[in-house]
Amino acid sequence: MVNQVKLNDSNSTRVPAATLRKQLTSIFSAVGTPDDHADIAAKVLVSASVRGVDTHGVANVVGYSQNAENGTYSIPQQMDIISESETTALMSGGNGIGLVSAYTAMEIAIEKAKKFGLGMVSVKDGHHVGMVAYYAMMALEHDMIGMSMTTAAPAVRPALGARKMLGTNPIGFAAPAGEERDFVLDMATSTVASGKVGLARRIGVPIPAGWAVTTEGEEITEPPDGENDSWALNPLGNTREQGSHKGYGLAVMVDILCGVLSGGGFSAQLSRGENMTWVMAIDIARFRDVDEFKSMMDDMIRELHATTALPGEDRVLVAGDPEADASDDRLANGVPVENGQYAAIRARAAEVGVDVII
Amino acid sequence: MVNQVKLNDSNSTRVPAATLRKQLTSIFSAVGTPDDHADIAAKVLVSASVRGVDTHGVANVVGYSQNAENGTYSIPQQMDIISESETTALMSGGNGIGLVSAYTAMEIAIEKAKKFGLGMVSVKDGHHVGMVAYYAMMALEHDMIGMSMTTAAPAVRPALGARKMLGTNPIGFAAPAGEERDFVLDMATSTVASGKVGLARRIGVPIPAGWAVTTEGEEITEPPDGENDSWALNPLGNTREQGSHKGYGLAVMVDILCGVLSGGGFSAQLSRGENMTWVMAIDIARFRDVDEFKSMMDDMIRELHATTALPGEDRVLVAGDPEADASDDRLANGVPVENGQYAAIRARAAEVGVDVII
Repeated sequence: MVNQVKLNDSNSTRVPAATLRKQLTSIFSAVGTPDDHADIAAKVLVSASVRGVDTHGVANVVGYSQNAENGTYSIPQQMDIISESETTALMSGGNGIGLVSAYTAMEIAIEKAKKFGLGMVSVKDGHHVGMVAYYAMMALEHDMIGMSMTTAAPAVRPALGARKMLGTNPIGFAAPAGEERDFVLDMATSTVASGKVGLARRIGVPIPAGWAVTTEGEEITEPPDGENDSWALNPLGNTREQGSHKGYGLAVMVDILCGVLSGGGFSAQLSRGENMTWVMAIDIARFRDVDEFKSMMDDMIRELHATTALPGEDRVLVAGDPEADASDDRLANGVPVENGQYAAIRARAAEVGVDVII
Repeated sequence: MVNQVKLNDSNSTRVPAATLRKQLTSIFSAVGTPDDHADIAAKVLVSASVRGVDTHGVANVVGYSQNAENGTYSIPQQMDIISESETTALMSGGNGIGLVSAYTAMEIAIEKAKKFGLGMVSVKDGHHVGMVAYYAMMALEHDMIGMSMTTAAPAVRPALGARKMLGTNPIGFAAPAGEERDFVLDMATSTVASGKVGLARRIGVPIPAGWAVTTEGEEITEPPDGENDSWALNPLGNTREQGSHKGYGLAVMVDILCGVLSGGGFSAQLSRGENMTWVMAIDIARFRDVDEFKSMMDDMIRELHATTALPGEDRVLVAGDPEADASDDRLANGVPVENGQYAAIRARAAEVGVDVII
């Protein structure tokens, strides 16, 4: 099964998270990113690596900083509030670094939720936001529930359809627990995220039937050589019988909240690298006592963990468990950076003329 | 494949929607439901039947009115706002008719969204709400986006788990289009809604592998004889490889917003018939011009409809299409009521002492 390349001592190098953050900040700064934006972008990428979401982690500093340098991203980015009410904002991300605009949007949503109970921001003129749950998780320290979504250019077919029309359009949702670990859902609305197919290709293993099909509807098990129009990812559910209209419907919901509500465009209108984003914050205390909420979250999480596992399975997990396990390890022992990516980050640091400190 | 029992002239009787609504209202009234509540309950059930969602349609008047009579539902129900802010409310449904409390909650959410851009209500002390998308759809005529969710007692296993721990916990989402039909998503977070397994049992056909498993993890194809602890529905995605953690994660998200945020309890704490509900309204005009929003919705829907279908499939649908097709037919030609259900509604009307008018 294709999961994650297991990073180990022979294929990766452990670097303390704080050092990574300093290195990434310096690279972003060197290509003209204002200090506060460089700090945000580095923080979000390092967080993904710490949580084990390596596809959205520190290695992305290379491409993002190239985009900043070559004008694909407008740097320094000018974020504007196009329209605003007590609880809502339509924001332009200024075609800059997507991480920075999504982060700023969630800060605005949280401020609005502090004042009026709820806050919601839809962002146009945006780029890739990395690990989408990051922005939902920003709500946690404020005793809020967070939600975040982002669109992307087409990679996924609609249910019954033979052509890619939707991004993998992921959904992030975070709610704080008390003694247990917070609930953090981060899911593409396709059966798998694009990264897993790319990973299978790189490491030379087949992919399971159910992940992707050709335009003729034939199952793909040999990972395709890059993005092209001859194949598409399946929506979560895969077939009509197994609920493909559900993954598809969720993907369109994401398109509506991110792309249509912002006016930035739905998936089929986006070019690769364009991403519209939507975030929401919910102030729990407006509904009920926060400690009681967290205590019920704990009860729920414990009951789920205590569920008898299927034969052959170890135990029942709750969304966020694998990432929290990775965090525990990586904050204590350093973040493993795959050797090719490690070399690429070092090379990029040298290229933009900053000290190589990792 | 198990889909819907096709209603036709030999197994059903067509009744005008307005007549059904009058009949249902009179039955609800006869068991002590206040007039305005009886009107709401009848309207919601008839709407489900008109839209072809027969499992949540008019036949439910029999059970609901029995619950009202035997004290399972507290009638007349006393709905209370337990806590409230500009944009939020925690509501008690007063253990009455779930349709009435969910409807009232969405009315409150819409009023709040009119004033502050967003409105959100979480409802405890609730019962079955029927077709969950109804409440999301209430937003449409106000040029708002609506969202609705509801929990239920366990029927679905967590990913990797062998015991049912979650309700089918459906999600409703509605957004208005311009010339095209509105986008209306209504999906259980399990692979199939419980009703489809019950339907297969009643009509004596097998169910596909992937819908349900025994506590030993064996695929079930013979539909089980009723709810019991020996089997569970699969979460959307079915297997680890095909994304079962996603359907599971969404089900928990629904539990958090409906059950934990309201304090009414998560699925594993609920008895059969207890359902907590969550609704949200988003005022589109706070973000952008409503006509421009709808025009982009139209463009998106047209592009999805124009997608080449997979070999063997007729055409690509958009969420809400099958229900809108059913509405067109049923509003013009009457709502087909399956003969057994038709007889049961008539019998129930006679039993509570009202005129039988269908």
